Amino acid sequence: MAERRGMLISFEGSEGCGKSTQIERLKARLSSAGQEILQMREPGGTFVGERIRDLLQHTKEAHSMCHEAELLLFAASRAQLVRESIRPALLAGKTVILDRFLDSTTVYQGYARGLPMESVRAINRFAVQDVVPDLTLLLDMDASKAWARIHATGRELDRMESQPLEFFENVRRGYLNLAAEQPDRIVVLDASLKPEELEQQIWTLVEHRRHAL
Amino acid sequence: MAERRGMLISFEGSEGCGKSTQIERLKARLSSAGQEILQMREPGGTFVGERIRDLLQHTKEAHSMCHEAELLLFAASRAQLVRESIRPALLAGKTVILDRFLDSTTVYQGYARGLPMESVRAINRFAVQDVVPDLTLLLDMDASKAWARIHATGRELDRMESQPLEFFENVRRGYLNLAAEQPDRIVVLDASLKPEELEQQIWTLVEHRRHAL
Repeated sequence: MAERRGMLISFEGSEGCGKSTQIERLKARLSSAGQEILQMREPGGTFVGERIRDLLQHTKEAHSMCHEAELLLFAASRAQLVRESIRPALLAGKTVILDRFLDSTTVYQGYARGLPMESVRAINRFAVQDVVPDLTLLLDMDASKAWARIHATGRELDRMESQPLEFFENVRRGYLNLAAEQPDRIVVLDASLKPEELEQQIWTLVEHRRHAL
Repeated sequence: MAERRGMLISFEGSEGCGKSTQIERLKARLSSAGQEILQMREPGGTFVGERIRDLLQHTKEAHSMCHEAELLLFAASRAQLVRESIRPALLAGKTVILDRFLDSTTVYQGYARGLPMESVRAINRFAVQDVVPDLTLLLDMDASKAWARIHATGRELDRMESQPLEFFENVRRGYLNLAAEQPDRIVVLDASLKPEELEQQIWTLVEHRRHAL
């Protein structure tokens, strides 16, 4: 995307790490700074993507879905989101904030589910092409703490949230491996910090990256 | 699939080539010969697959879908079909007949839509793993004849059927290229022959391949 003008920021981390809070805070700061923002969730965000989201959520109750179909559905939703929403927004100069993106697939379907990593990466590339985040903020947290935090909420847990602790440990390990492989893009943050402190760290990183683009 | 006992047969060819007729005739012959048969359509055939089929068909009317998402949805439906239906049927010794399978994706999304062939093949392999047809019957037909035959029906045409003649020519060329690459698996048949004649050719091929397995 030679003509790309906006900045693409993704948030990653296990369930319970506090992504939603930090996304809201970053949005408020960017808005105050006069930035136009597009925030998207995955899967979803488009007509096609929302139907895929329904299918992924509906299926967990009544029917089984193989891991391969799950990965391909996430990728289909992402391919549509990139072409219909993210790329046009970046070309128009907007800042795009994503709550999870391609790294979630690499970690959850690759590292945690054990699908072949080479296929996971090939399918990710096919789905996003050149639309890769400029900055990925990984909210890292001790797996047992994240697990305990989710179970303490008392609400009904979704498919990923209700996995055993070992799954959370694999997810964390996967994320940290990815970050070690791509240190220029993925920044590891300590999710156990106070929200205000984390907010300030994130803002500094975003400002720095924006000036470097 | 070392323990595989049944035979997997796929039918391929452009719209209007007469696949449905020949599938019915082959099924009748196999039933008379005492074979247990599983016949499936793509996309579909499972809970997940039928919902993907709805999405692919519904979307054409009201909303656009990018070619990449289309391919990934076909692949998701196929991955589920292979694991939920086809592989168990083959292990149980059934003959599985498929009206289109992975070659349709290679031809329609790869050759005709122009998606990168390396990605198309990687995604196909990920979806089907080792579940590749023992025999693929390609009903080959002059593109302008197939096109004319469809338009002569007078009924409403679906997304693929309503493509221009050039698309049909690309599809035919794609199929013939694939058959040239994999002559042991893909047999090219002249779809302009009389149905009885074609039926006899197909039966001879199926019997021959069955004894060779």
